Amino acid sequence: MPFSADAWSRNRALYDATLAHPFNAELTEGRLALDSFRHYIVQDAKYLVAFGQALAVAAAKADQPDHIVQFAGAAREAIVVERALHEDYFGRFGLDAAAVAVEPASPACHHYAAWLLATAFREPLPVIAAALLPCFWVYREVGTAIHGRAAPDNSYRAWIDTYAGEDFAAAVDAMIATTDALAAEASGTIVAAMHAAFARAMQLEWVFWDSAHRRERWPV
Amino acid sequence: MPFSADAWSRNRALYDATLAHPFNAELTEGRLALDSFRHYIVQDAKYLVAFGQALAVAAAKADQPDHIVQFAGAAREAIVVERALHEDYFGRFGLDAAAVAVEPASPACHHYAAWLLATAFREPLPVIAAALLPCFWVYREVGTAIHGRAAPDNSYRAWIDTYAGEDFAAAVDAMIATTDALAAEASGTIVAAMHAAFARAMQLEWVFWDSAHRRERWPV
Amino acid sequence: MPFSADAWSRNRALYDATLAHPFNAELTEGRLALDSFRHYIVQDAKYLVAFGQALAVAAAKADQPDHIVQFAGAAREAIVVERALHEDYFGRFGLDAAAVAVEPASPACHHYAAWLLATAFREPLPVIAAALLPCFWVYREVGTAIHGRAAPDNSYRAWIDTYAGEDFAAAVDAMIATTDALAAEASGTIVAAMHAAFARAMQLEWVFWDSAHRRERWPV
Amino acid sequence: MPFSADAWSRNRALYDATLAHPFNAELTEGRLALDSFRHYIVQDAKYLVAFGQALAVAAAKADQPDHIVQFAGAAREAIVVERALHEDYFGRFGLDAAAVAVEPASPACHHYAAWLLATAFREPLPVIAAALLPCFWVYREVGTAIHGRAAPDNSYRAWIDTYAGEDFAAAVDAMIATTDALAAEASGTIVAAMHAAFARAMQLEWVFWDSAHRRERWPV
Repeated sequence: MPFSADAWSRNRALYDATLAHPFNAELTEGRLALDSFRHYIVQDAKYLVAFGQALAVAAAKADQPDHIVQFAGAAREAIVVERALHEDYFGRFGLDAAAVAVEPASPACHHYAAWLLATAFREPLPVIAAALLPCFWVYREVGTAIHGRAAPDNSYRAWIDTYAGEDFAAAVDAMIATTDALAAEASGTIVAAMHAAFARAMQLEWVFWDSAHRRERWPV
Repeated sequence: MPFSADAWSRNRALYDATLAHPFNAELTEGRLALDSFRHYIVQDAKYLVAFGQALAVAAAKADQPDHIVQFAGAAREAIVVERALHEDYFGRFGLDAAAVAVEPASPACHHYAAWLLATAFREPLPVIAAALLPCFWVYREVGTAIHGRAAPDNSYRAWIDTYAGEDFAAAVDAMIATTDALAAEASGTIVAAMHAAFARAMQLEWVFWDSAHRRERWPV
Repeated sequence: MPFSADAWSRNRALYDATLAHPFNAELTEGRLALDSFRHYIVQDAKYLVAFGQALAVAAAKADQPDHIVQFAGAAREAIVVERALHEDYFGRFGLDAAAVAVEPASPACHHYAAWLLATAFREPLPVIAAALLPCFWVYREVGTAIHGRAAPDNSYRAWIDTYAGEDFAAAVDAMIATTDALAAEASGTIVAAMHAAFARAMQLEWVFWDSAHRRERWPV
Repeated sequence: MPFSADAWSRNRALYDATLAHPFNAELTEGRLALDSFRHYIVQDAKYLVAFGQALAVAAAKADQPDHIVQFAGAAREAIVVERALHEDYFGRFGLDAAAVAVEPASPACHHYAAWLLATAFREPLPVIAAALLPCFWVYREVGTAIHGRAAPDNSYRAWIDTYAGEDFAAAVDAMIATTDALAAEASGTIVAAMHAAFARAMQLEWVFWDSAHRRERWPV
């Protein structure tokens, strides 16, 4: 079994919990509190910068030119999506760039971002790929699942469509294929570290959505 | 004003909140729940490994031989303290190495450790030093303050004495001096990043103690 | 004076020596030994992979989204140019991918590549930018200078045209602007390190061309 | 066969060439030109700083506390030896710290140092260990071989004795054991990269000694 199928299977319950989380359930029905979506979208913009930086480290550690192009391209794309949030969604929710910049990263966002960067700089490439993969994969699955259920006039439609599109699906497939190729050459020790990284990212994905629903702030 | 005095002054309220936190108040009076101390000491052992790794990156980024010796020496010392926890405290609290190893890092421990490593690998040396400094400094201040107030037969006496000792105090002074020396050559942009890193570490210190008091577990 | 103008001025003699080097003089006149150009083009393909990896680290250390996009984009572009060498020039010189892969990196190529990667992972972003800049800038200047002098039927015409084009010139201007912006916020210590890195890269550029002319091999 | 025995066997000819190099042959007989030894000792002082920094990165990437202590301790020891060169040998050869500081790193020293740091920051721990090992191992073998042949009044006696001592021998054995332990858990891909790194370091060791004998300078 390829690494990706094994990893997804091991974390199936966590994915189900993510899809069923009130944030996503309410988003699907269009009744998610605007303040929760606002919290989410601001934190996602901050997260995407770190996600792009971590993808860039993956490009730097890749030996195969194809992988350098893939990871560096994904790094750019993360920032392009971040800019789309600024230019598109923020306007709808009455936010401008200055307002976003002064909002502090939430604990969940800061934690996930820090862990991705620590993993990127410290770990070998297969582990980095495994850490980055859930963000791609969960978004495609959640996006597709919500897309199939949400009403056309759902006020979060634009966001839903982004992650249910064909371009994003192809990028996710490519990332799964690269991660599996790296796993195929890895030792048992490294594959175990890949599974730990994948599970951690699945967990931090759930925490991120939960934190948006709770509009999480720092206790001090 | 040297960086350190400025940084401490800016974060004084956060330090006061840390010292006054129920974990430390109850520890001083010897009435801290054993399970909370047990949670703390297990997580601290895990944290110290990452703290040592981050100090080692600081050694690798230092240009001055004296700083390489200082940071590499502190990296070793972090592991020596981690081993003392294993050999000394764990026995008292009915824990063995295997029991400690299987306990997962708490969210607070994992967050702080990941951020230290991300900072160490990604940021320039002055910012790394500023991120590492609170763990030294807060422990000395808390250790000294508790030491002066705790009864001699406090059941947490051995822990208290560690951080109130002269050797540790000298190491803290040396780390303050190096951080100030690095700040003195840094640009305004870097000094601002140093202050942000110092404040973040102060915050994550409070969260770490608070998480032990709550015996924090992952929500999923 | 912006950093770039100062750095170029300080290294003017080294640039003049590079342009006047027999490799470039003979290339301009179309009388460069085919074996020297073959050596150059094989080593350049290997160098470009490391150059792309180093640019990806710069993207990972950049805080501004615009800089992440710029450096990650340049990382991709380095690999795109590397592929063009494979698909275009290698065929002309009777080389295929397998033949290129088995040739070892020359000492000059290995040295320059290792230093760029060490700088990228260990140094702060302004110093990385200063280390990467000469490869952009020298190629534009050498390309433009040779382009103006070479006969239209010069057998190295395709190579010459690449670096004398408008797209490349715009990428070089953007990299100069980013380096100057980073220098403007840097301390005197960091600006001195930037000058040292820029001068080192200028020196390793000369050595790279000289090594191709000599068809350098390892002594052991 | 453990990695180390395999690697040493594959590079036996390169080791023999290093031991037989005129630098070492003349050193053994006490007739090495003072200027060559002076060149060597100045460059070695510069090299040891980078060697210590690379060892510190190995400590930062190690997961096992024992390995963190080993690598961080070796990082410190590299600087201690560097200081001994300053305090002891430099005086004998009419050099002071300022004179050493202004001498530029030779091409061979700069190349080896840059490659060690690039490897340390970019590669996984088993490859880093394989890259660092030859410097330990070759010095012990060369030191021991020369020690057995050199006359007691050899003017380079103090240097010879350093690397023929029991403390150094034990440190080398420990580094071999750790490298073998890391190789035992590594995939075939990583073991191949370890062999490439070990061979590269053996080659750069030879080049370093050769460069000292030639009192190498930069061509530009």
